[in-house]
Amino acid sequence: MMERLETFDNKYPERDYEITIVNKEFTSVCPMTGLPDFGTITIQYVPDKKCLELKALKYYFLDFRNEGIFYEAVVNQILDELIAACAPRKMTVKGEFTVRGGIYSEVEASYEKEN
Amino acid sequence: MMERLETFDNKYPERDYEITIVNKEFTSVCPMTGLPDFGTITIQYVPDKKCLELKALKYYFLDFRNEGIFYEAVVNQILDELIAACAPRKMTVKGEFTVRGGIYSEVEASYEKEN
Amino acid sequence: MMERLETFDNKYPERDYEITIVNKEFTSVCPMTGLPDFGTITIQYVPDKKCLELKALKYYFLDFRNEGIFYEAVVNQILDELIAACAPRKMTVKGEFTVRGGIYSEVEASYEKEN
Amino acid sequence: MMERLETFDNKYPERDYEITIVNKEFTSVCPMTGLPDFGTITIQYVPDKKCLELKALKYYFLDFRNEGIFYEAVVNQILDELIAACAPRKMTVKGEFTVRGGIYSEVEASYEKEN
Amino acid sequence: MMERLETFDNKYPERDYEITIVNKEFTSVCPMTGLPDFGTITIQYVPDKKCLELKALKYYFLDFRNEGIFYEAVVNQILDELIAACAPRKMTVKGEFTVRGGIYSEVEASYEKEN
Amino acid sequence: MMERLETFDNKYPERDYEITIVNKEFTSVCPMTGLPDFGTITIQYVPDKKCLELKALKYYFLDFRNEGIFYEAVVNQILDELIAACAPRKMTVKGEFTVRGGIYSEVEASYEKEN
Amino acid sequence: MMERLETFDNKYPERDYEITIVNKEFTSVCPMTGLPDFGTITIQYVPDKKCLELKALKYYFLDFRNEGIFYEAVVNQILDELIAACAPRKMTVKGEFTVRGGIYSEVEASYEKEN
Amino acid sequence: MMERLETFDNKYPERDYEITIVNKEFTSVCPMTGLPDFGTITIQYVPDKKCLELKALKYYFLDFRNEGIFYEAVVNQILDELIAACAPRKMTVKGEFTVRGGIYSEVEASYEKEN
Amino acid sequence: MMERLETFDNKYPERDYEITIVNKEFTSVCPMTGLPDFGTITIQYVPDKKCLELKALKYYFLDFRNEGIFYEAVVNQILDELIAACAPRKMTVKGEFTVRGGIYSEVEASYEKEN
Amino acid sequence: MMERLETFDNKYPERDYEITIVNKEFTSVCPMTGLPDFGTITIQYVPDKKCLELKALKYYFLDFRNEGIFYEAVVNQILDELIAACAPRKMTVKGEFTVRGGIYSEVEASYEKEN
Repeated sequence: MMERLETFDNKYPERDYEITIVNKEFTSVCPMTGLPDFGTITIQYVPDKKCLELKALKYYFLDFRNEGIFYEAVVNQILDELIAACAPRKMTVKGEFTVRGGIYSEVEASYEKEN
Repeated sequence: MMERLETFDNKYPERDYEITIVNKEFTSVCPMTGLPDFGTITIQYVPDKKCLELKALKYYFLDFRNEGIFYEAVVNQILDELIAACAPRKMTVKGEFTVRGGIYSEVEASYEKEN
Repeated sequence: MMERLETFDNKYPERDYEITIVNKEFTSVCPMTGLPDFGTITIQYVPDKKCLELKALKYYFLDFRNEGIFYEAVVNQILDELIAACAPRKMTVKGEFTVRGGIYSEVEASYEKEN
Repeated sequence: MMERLETFDNKYPERDYEITIVNKEFTSVCPMTGLPDFGTITIQYVPDKKCLELKALKYYFLDFRNEGIFYEAVVNQILDELIAACAPRKMTVKGEFTVRGGIYSEVEASYEKEN
Repeated sequence: MMERLETFDNKYPERDYEITIVNKEFTSVCPMTGLPDFGTITIQYVPDKKCLELKALKYYFLDFRNEGIFYEAVVNQILDELIAACAPRKMTVKGEFTVRGGIYSEVEASYEKEN
Repeated sequence: MMERLETFDNKYPERDYEITIVNKEFTSVCPMTGLPDFGTITIQYVPDKKCLELKALKYYFLDFRNEGIFYEAVVNQILDELIAACAPRKMTVKGEFTVRGGIYSEVEASYEKEN
Repeated sequence: MMERLETFDNKYPERDYEITIVNKEFTSVCPMTGLPDFGTITIQYVPDKKCLELKALKYYFLDFRNEGIFYEAVVNQILDELIAACAPRKMTVKGEFTVRGGIYSEVEASYEKEN
Repeated sequence: MMERLETFDNKYPERDYEITIVNKEFTSVCPMTGLPDFGTITIQYVPDKKCLELKALKYYFLDFRNEGIFYEAVVNQILDELIAACAPRKMTVKGEFTVRGGIYSEVEASYEKEN
Repeated sequence: MMERLETFDNKYPERDYEITIVNKEFTSVCPMTGLPDFGTITIQYVPDKKCLELKALKYYFLDFRNEGIFYEAVVNQILDELIAACAPRKMTVKGEFTVRGGIYSEVEASYEKEN
Repeated sequence: MMERLETFDNKYPERDYEITIVNKEFTSVCPMTGLPDFGTITIQYVPDKKCLELKALKYYFLDFRNEGIFYEAVVNQILDELIAACAPRKMTVKGEFTVRGGIYSEVEASYEKEN
C-alpha cells in the first residue's frame, strides 16, 4: 500500500526537529473474527531529506480499512513502510486499539538511523 | 492456571518493540475476608520469539475470579507465569486495586532477560 | 436473594428526603456466554418507614457474582426486591454496564408509591 | 439492512423503564467525497413488548461501514428501522460525528407511540 | 451543638437570592465500627432575615469530628439546626460520603418555609 | 455574505429532529482595536423543508475572518442569515468568545417559527 | 463606583437574547480580617435598550480590588448597579469565592423587569 | 504509635518490586491553631524481607486523628516508623495537605538502604 | 516579519532561568488550499542578555494571519527569527495544529547556543 | 519586603527532603499598564537548617498586591529573597500568569547551594 505515500523536501535539514502526526480514526479488520478494529495511530519522526505529505498519508491509512491484519503487524508494517518512504533520522509508531473482550492493547515500535 | 496461556510467533523479532495490555476488569477474592477485590492489571513487554495471544490471556485472567490471593501474589504470580509462557526480553506487571478501608494499593514488578 | 436485605427505622419519616447509593463493583455473569459482566448500580430512593442497611446491601450485591442474568433483569429484579424490602415512597435503580463488542448499555427503572 | 435486527421478549412490560445503548465505533462513508465518516450513535428507548438484542444490533451497525449516506439519513433511518423492529413506547437516536473541515455535527431524532 | 451557630442581618431581604456553602472537610465517626467517616456537606439556602456566619459554621462542623452518628442523621440534624438558627425561606443540605466496602452514599434533605 | 449559504432538501420533514453544528475555529476582527477575536459558534436547529449544507456553511464562516464586527452582531447576524437561508422551525445560535482583558463573553439568540 | 459603567445601544431590541460575561479575576478585601478575597463573577442578562460595554465593566470590577466588602454585598451591589446602568429585561449575578477555612461559598441573585 | 504496625513475610524477596499505598483520608491537628488538617499520604516502597499489613496501617494512620503535629513532622515521622517496622530496600513518603489561607503544601521524604 | 519583535534587557543574566510563552490563538493560511489553519504555538527559552517583549510578540504572531505557510515552516521560521531577535542560550518552539482530514499534527524544533 | 519572612528550625536536617508550597492567589500590578496581573506561584525547596513559616509567607505574598513589577522580576526576586531568608540546599520558584492579549506566560528559576 505504500505506493500511496508521498514526500516533499525538508527545507530545514541542518536541524534535528520532530514532527508528530496523530490519526484518531484508524480502522482495520480483525483477521480472526472479520470484525472491525478501531484505534489511534501516532507517528513521531525526525525528518532527514524528506517529510511525509499529510494528505497522501491520510489515503495510505484508508487502505487499511478493509484489510485483515493483527495489531502487531499494523504498527510494524506502518513503521517499515514510512521508513522506506522518507528515510527519517528517527521514527516511532504507536497504535492504541479500543477495548475488545474487556482488554485494551497498545503496540509501539521505534527506529533510529545508524550513523 | 498458566496452561490457559497461548502464544503466537513474533514476526518482527529483529526489532525491540513494546506491547501494552490493560485489563480493567480484574477481580479476585481477598483470602482474609472472602470478599471480592477489584483492580486493573497492566502488562508491558518486549517480545522475543513469542507474543501473548489476547483471547487466551482473557481466560487466564478469569481464572482468578474465585481465587483467594493477596495483591502482592497476584502481580508476582502473573509476572512469573507470563515469563514462563512467552520468554519476553523485558516485562512489567502492575496491579492497581480499588480502595479498601480508605486505602488504595498498587503493586508493580519487572523482569529483564539477562544477556 | 433478597433475604439478605436488612433495614432500620427511618428516624425522619415526616420529611421527604433522598438517599443515593452507588456500587461501582457490581459483577454478574452473562447467561449467553458464561463470561463475567461488570457495571455500576445506582439506587436513589425516598424512604418511608424503613431505610436500607448498607452492609447487608453489599452482601446482597455479592450474590449476583456468579449468577447468570441479563442487564434488563438485573435492574428490574433489584428494583422489585428493594421495594419489597423497604417499601420506599420512590425508588430508581440504574445499571451502567461496561463495553461489550464496542457497545455500552445502560438500563434504568423507577417506582413511585401510589397514594 | 434491518433484517439483521433481532428482539427478545420484554419480561417487565408492566413498567416503563429506559434502555440506553451507545456505539462509539460507528463508521459510514460520505456520499460526496467517498471518505469515511466516524461517529457515536446513542439509542435511548422505553421497550413495549420487545427489547433489542445487542449482538444483532452490533452487526446491524456494521452494515453501514461501506454505505454512502448523509448524517441526517443515518439518524433518521436507524430510528425508523429500530421502531419497525421493536415497536418501542418511546425512542431517541442521536448521532455525534467527528470534526470535518473544522466543523462538528450532531443529529438527534425522537419518536413517541401514540396512545 | 447548634449554640455554636451565629447569624448576621440579611441586608437584602426584599430579594430572594441563594447562598451555597460547601465543606469538603467534614468528618464524623461511624457509630457501628468507631471508625471515622469522611464527606462533603453542601448547604444551599435563600435567607430571610438572617444569614449564617461562616466562621461560626466552620466551628459547628468541627463538633461532629468525634461524634458517633449515621449519615441520614448527619444531614437531617444539620438541616434542623440551621433552620432553627437562621429561619431561611428555603434550605437544602446534602452529604456526600466516601466509599465504604465498595459502596458510596449520598443523603439530601430539603425545607421550604410555609407562607 | 449569506449568498454563500446552500441548502438541500430535508428528507424527513414529517418529523421534528434537531441538528447541531459547532465551529471551534471562528475568527473575526474587533472593530474597536483591529485585533482578531476568536470563538466557538454553535448552531442548533430543527429543519423544516431545508437543511444547511455543511461545506458551504464552512465558507460562510470564513467570510468573517477579516470582518470588523461586535460579538452581539456576530450572533444575531448569523441567526438572521441562517433563518433567511433555510427557514427552520426553530434555531439557536451561540457564540463563546475567548478571554479579553480577563473577561470571557458569550452571546446566545434563538428563533421559533410562528404557527 | 457605578459611574464607571458604560453602555451602548442594543441593535437587536426586538429579540430576547442572552449575554453572559465571566470575570475569573475578581478580588476584593474581607472587611473582618483585611485579607484579600478572590472569586469568579458571572453575569447573565437579556438586554433591553442598552448593552454593557466590556472595557468599562473591566474597570468597574477593578474598583473592588481594595474595597472591604462581604460576599453577599458584592453580588447584590453588582446586581443593583448593573440594573441601574443598563435596565435589562432580566439579569443574574453569581459570585463563586475561593476556599477560606476549608469552606467554599457561592452567592447568586436575580432580577426580572416587571411588565 | 508505631506499635500498631504489622508486617507479613515477603514471598518474592529475590525480586525488587514496588508497592504503592495511598490514604486520601489522613487527618491530624494543627499544633498552632488546634484546627484539623486534612491530606493525602502516599507511600511507595520496595520490600525486603517484610511487607506492611494494610489493615494495621489503617489503624496506625487513625492514631494521628487527634494528634497536634506539623506537616514536615507528619511525613518524616511516618517514614522513620515505617522503616523501623519493615526495613524496606527503598521508601518514599509524600504528604499533600489541603489549602490553608490560600496556600497548598506538600512534603516528600525518601530513604534508600545502604548496601 | 521579524522587525516587529522587540526585546528588553534581562536583569538576571547571571542565572539560567526559563521563560514559557503560549499563544493559543495562532492562525495562518494553508498554501495548498487557501483555507485557514489554527494552532497553538509554545515558546520556551533561557534568555541571555535579552528577553522577548510580549506585546510586540503578539503583533509578530498576528502577521501570520493571512500568510500562506506550511506547518514545518511556521515552527522553523519562528525559531530562526526569535533567535535572531534575542540570542537566547536555549530555545524550543512547538506548533500544535488542529485536526485536518482526521489528522492532527505537531512540529517541534530546538536550538542551543554553542559555547 | 523580605523582612516579613519567618523561619523555624528544620528538625530533620540529616535527610534531604522536599517541600512544595503553592499560592494560587498571587496578584501584582503591571508596571506598564497599571492593571492587575494574576498568577500561581509554586515554590519547591530542600531545607537545610531552616524551613519557611507558611503564615508569614502568606503575608509576604500579599505585599506584591499593589506593587508594579514584571513577571521575570516577580520570580527572580522571590527566589532571591527566599534564599536569603532560609538558605535552602535547593530551591525552584515558578510563576504561571493568566492570559493577557491571548498570550499565557510562565517563568521558572532555580538555585542549588554549592558544596
